[in-house]
Amino acid sequence: MRKAKIKVIVWGLGAMGKGIVEMLNAKEGVEIVGAVVRGPKIGKSMYELIGIDRGHKKDIIAGSFNDVIKEKVADVVILCTDSFVKDSFEKIKYVLEKKINVISTAEEMAYPKAQEKELSDKIDKIAKENNVTVLGTGINPGLIMDLLVTTLTGACMDVEKIRAERVNNLAPFGPAVMKGQGVGISVDEFNNRVKEGTLAGHVGFPESITMIADAIGWNLSDPIKLERAPIISSVYRKTPYAEVQPGYVAGCNMKGYGYVDGELKIEMLHPQQIEPHLEGGTTGDYITIEGTPNINMSITPEIPGGIGTIAMTVNMIPHVINSRPGLKTMIDLPVPRAIMGDMRDLLED
Amino acid sequence: MRKAKIKVIVWGLGAMGKGIVEMLNAKEGVEIVGAVVRGPKIGKSMYELIGIDRGHKKDIIAGSFNDVIKEKVADVVILCTDSFVKDSFEKIKYVLEKKINVISTAEEMAYPKAQEKELSDKIDKIAKENNVTVLGTGINPGLIMDLLVTTLTGACMDVEKIRAERVNNLAPFGPAVMKGQGVGISVDEFNNRVKEGTLAGHVGFPESITMIADAIGWNLSDPIKLERAPIISSVYRKTPYAEVQPGYVAGCNMKGYGYVDGELKIEMLHPQQIEPHLEGGTTGDYITIEGTPNINMSITPEIPGGIGTIAMTVNMIPHVINSRPGLKTMIDLPVPRAIMGDMRDLLED
Repeated sequence: MRKAKIKVIVWGLGAMGKGIVEMLNAKEGVEIVGAVVRGPKIGKSMYELIGIDRGHKKDIIAGSFNDVIKEKVADVVILCTDSFVKDSFEKIKYVLEKKINVISTAEEMAYPKAQEKELSDKIDKIAKENNVTVLGTGINPGLIMDLLVTTLTGACMDVEKIRAERVNNLAPFGPAVMKGQGVGISVDEFNNRVKEGTLAGHVGFPESITMIADAIGWNLSDPIKLERAPIISSVYRKTPYAEVQPGYVAGCNMKGYGYVDGELKIEMLHPQQIEPHLEGGTTGDYITIEGTPNINMSITPEIPGGIGTIAMTVNMIPHVINSRPGLKTMIDLPVPRAIMGDMRDLLED
Repeated sequence: MRKAKIKVIVWGLGAMGKGIVEMLNAKEGVEIVGAVVRGPKIGKSMYELIGIDRGHKKDIIAGSFNDVIKEKVADVVILCTDSFVKDSFEKIKYVLEKKINVISTAEEMAYPKAQEKELSDKIDKIAKENNVTVLGTGINPGLIMDLLVTTLTGACMDVEKIRAERVNNLAPFGPAVMKGQGVGISVDEFNNRVKEGTLAGHVGFPESITMIADAIGWNLSDPIKLERAPIISSVYRKTPYAEVQPGYVAGCNMKGYGYVDGELKIEMLHPQQIEPHLEGGTTGDYITIEGTPNINMSITPEIPGGIGTIAMTVNMIPHVINSRPGLKTMIDLPVPRAIMGDMRDLLED
């Protein structure tokens, strides 16, 4: 086992960044060596910024990316700042050119070539030139509606059709998520925002659908189709960050469709709303594969998104360090796993 | 894409070998170049031996291992002849020394170091010396009670306890399986055979338990405990290969326990019997992880063992060819996946 602990820099101290810091601090064989922030947060204690007790850990003073990220000062930078490839490209490039591996929580980075082929090729090239690896991961995209589906097809001689459904509760999330999903707004406003293209809904279906298709060798014949429909509440619903009156929008029912030879082959359903149980709804992750054999999987309740993304991001650190250089995705690397021992035990010689 | 098709030799033409031949024949970019048999089967048509129509395929004359397996005549030998490492060791060695990769369906080969550390090290060394790869896989061990469990822990910050249960129907299986599970015998005979060590039950719990423990960094503190209990039928049950009178044994309820610091951490339950629905039983695969978060997964009905093992074995061919040399297990390689396109598309340059 190597003597030096695995060194990690966390870029972005929002909800994900905070959770990642907490998880890393609880693990053996790994240490946080830097935190990247912007504006007035620069120069403050990372622990004070995220509001957790640092215990016996040495303090980390958060800094700007160019002050914190110097050549080879860490094994991995965990980048948890964006959802889209184009917004994270320059950051990823900067880290790679400092010869440090990158794990990104940006949803589109889970399979960047799905929508950003050109940037994706550039990232791969820069990573290889600098002998380091880039991976995008998270709970979804990253596991539930793509890697787990792919893994289950491994037991199939043939696959005819795939359906993945994730029914979750947005209650634990903050204002940014509520806005992105249209929670609390009127049905008219929801529909207008869909028309304008300002209602994000779930980000990741093109990535999940393309990842599965590429993994099992299906050529998508048509553009991936996305639909966003309002989930209209018939009751009053309330969370710390949102309030929904009856007749208003409790969330976004996102649907995605992938076609092979013009035929619907991959169907994704992801209704996201606050407090679905108030109308008798249950939550869960469901995968149905029609093939030889048929497979019907359910996880109830759903694996929670926040904890799941934090865990996936940290748990993939050793696989990313071990990987051959370049842009990798979850279907290229060994399976994720919890790390209950020393993280260095998972490093290859 | 490479021009030559992937070349496969199938060693053993039992139920698994037959299924593997059928699946390989239905896939693109791969061809069977040899079949290994023993005794009077030598010199006969592979297709006649397994009783399937060869269509437009060139006939394959089955031969002895030393006639069929010559240096580099294939990319992979699929070895489906044994359950135990010690029985398959010489065969694996022979193939590796001919510089050909091996995929084995022997249950213990899914994680051979669990019970055969010395042979496991030898296999690894021979594989590396010859620049080829060995993998043991199948539905279970290989996916359901180990790789799938491991993958789900990837969404966990912490794991407290793991429970995996596989409830299946042995009805489709032949006389060897019926004998190994004690189907149709009296309770006294079952108990005597357990005492004598001649009732196999499920083979693979030490492998699955050790695979999970190693993957997530748990050190097993005690020997793995195995229990075999008779499933006593209260009704008459019958299949093509077995008959059970009321009061007699319908199958074996196999249990396995893994301990960390003396505490039960991994619990495996695998009742295998014919026609459980005759007493109202349902079948399925169930995984429960106690941790952060808790995860409750079910697949109903269970993924069938025969088809599943055939599929896993064939679907891992490209990963084995791509792999670095040595003895690998399912937790070392990228996730399995169905192959619906040309198998060569999955080969790395």
